[in-house]
Amino acid sequence: MTTITINEVGMRDGLQSLQVIMPTTAKRQWIDAAYAAGVRHMEVASFVPAKLLPQMADAKEVVAHALSYPDLIVSVLAPNLRGCRDALESGAHRIIAPVSVSEAHSLANVRRTPLEMVEELARMCQLRAEMGLHNVQLIAGMSVAFGCTRQGEVPLNDLCELTRHVLEAGCDLVCLGDTTGYANPGQVATTLQAVRAIAGDKLRAAHFHDTRGLALANSLVAVQQGVTELDSSLAGLGGCPFAPGASGNTVTEDLVFMLQSMGYDTGIDLIALIASRDVLRAALPDETLYGCIARAGLPLNYSPVANRA
Amino acid sequence: MTTITINEVGMRDGLQSLQVIMPTTAKRQWIDAAYAAGVRHMEVASFVPAKLLPQMADAKEVVAHALSYPDLIVSVLAPNLRGCRDALESGAHRIIAPVSVSEAHSLANVRRTPLEMVEELARMCQLRAEMGLHNVQLIAGMSVAFGCTRQGEVPLNDLCELTRHVLEAGCDLVCLGDTTGYANPGQVATTLQAVRAIAGDKLRAAHFHDTRGLALANSLVAVQQGVTELDSSLAGLGGCPFAPGASGNTVTEDLVFMLQSMGYDTGIDLIALIASRDVLRAALPDETLYGCIARAGLPLNYSPVANRA
Repeated sequence: MTTITINEVGMRDGLQSLQVIMPTTAKRQWIDAAYAAGVRHMEVASFVPAKLLPQMADAKEVVAHALSYPDLIVSVLAPNLRGCRDALESGAHRIIAPVSVSEAHSLANVRRTPLEMVEELARMCQLRAEMGLHNVQLIAGMSVAFGCTRQGEVPLNDLCELTRHVLEAGCDLVCLGDTTGYANPGQVATTLQAVRAIAGDKLRAAHFHDTRGLALANSLVAVQQGVTELDSSLAGLGGCPFAPGASGNTVTEDLVFMLQSMGYDTGIDLIALIASRDVLRAALPDETLYGCIARAGLPLNYSPVANRA
Repeated sequence: MTTITINEVGMRDGLQSLQVIMPTTAKRQWIDAAYAAGVRHMEVASFVPAKLLPQMADAKEVVAHALSYPDLIVSVLAPNLRGCRDALESGAHRIIAPVSVSEAHSLANVRRTPLEMVEELARMCQLRAEMGLHNVQLIAGMSVAFGCTRQGEVPLNDLCELTRHVLEAGCDLVCLGDTTGYANPGQVATTLQAVRAIAGDKLRAAHFHDTRGLALANSLVAVQQGVTELDSSLAGLGGCPFAPGASGNTVTEDLVFMLQSMGYDTGIDLIALIASRDVLRAALPDETLYGCIARAGLPLNYSPVANRA
């Protein structure tokens, strides 16, 4: 049975685009509930100035709480060297540097061109070495890899070129992100093949949004193409504030249902995962909770494959 | 460029489960709008007693209107010989006989066991011959082919056996229906392979519901497996009144977006198709209109592949 790692990104990508701020207590409860349901990879915070993203002002505390689970892999986002230093000091296991393939998105998101962001990534790698934290993984999160709301089409060649650069800069892993919900399944297949030819097994993760309804179909194709780590967000929370119209990460529950029902091992108890939506319902009473399986319920006599290998 | 036929089933499967009755005028407007958007296959009515399904009481008129378009392929559903006679007399090009693989669903839906329904299908084929209407296609719509809300799992062997029977009974085509939204992409692949081994190119159509969010992923896998005709419903209307909890056909607009963006030719103008939701909004003001692409809008600089071959 093939294992697919579900990386719950709701605490970071889900919350950062909301107007409301989730209290730290609720974030802890969410991490607890996700962990109890079997989730072992979470992206829990961004290390950015609190005045720019007050939703992430408690990043350090949230990371500390997540690290209280010894077998939980804790990821954080850091858009620059300063954030990376904070992230390294926080004890997080993985740091994602957002590298936009589109210049327009890159400037809006990190105020740097893509190549300037690659240089920043190189400095992050150097800092990690200086701090002796070789076990921390630095991940290039390739944003708008499948299209951009500001630029439109993003040439595959631009993505491939930028992938070469981030690898040269010293990142450990590459994650392809459909920040804007532009990707289609055929493109996902073609793109993964092209980038894998460059990145090899450093490409194993993908990040989709359900903006145009294709998050599950795209995730499916990613798995068909050998991706083993998928980002998603409980109840489909999320979106990028700098990509107008983009909304909703892949719904974690629906993704887990799809993969489990196909026989993949996610290690997640789907019933407990669905129940964990209660944390969001209580803490974010005005937010729409997306997702089909929670509404429709499991098929009759459904046997979730929840055993952890 | 591969052509995929979109069969709009909203006027039948979409409307039959609603509490409200769409006026005949609105059905005509819907057919007009769908045709104008390039849809050339529609399932427009059921021939069933009006007292059982008042939503379909105007079946004859609706079919007549659809037939006013000379290049529109008009399908109808007929659950028994009497309905089939009406359907044959209506001039419809295709008649779908619902053959449930689960006995519990079959009894609830058509008051016959699966094998009794096969016998009815044989009588339908005989009637067609007697009426000299050899050009009318009789399609076995294999309901709950992927699982049943009453029975749970539906063994693939049962589906294969029943497929042999419906072919022996004389049907021209077989369509696999996920009436209940139980199918998963792996199962779709396995099932299509198994049934194709029996039905050959008489299996070219599939029908999915988005109850658990997998309609597009399942449709994608069906296309990967050689299916060239997909059922769907504008705004995801629909569901089976005898399959509790089942709701929402594949959303036509989202399906067309997925296929077009992958380079498949559907012959459909996506912008006109999205605009045709106005007919539903006006005629069914209290119904939820599903679908992502209508809400999110097309990607920037998107070029729909709308040319009819």
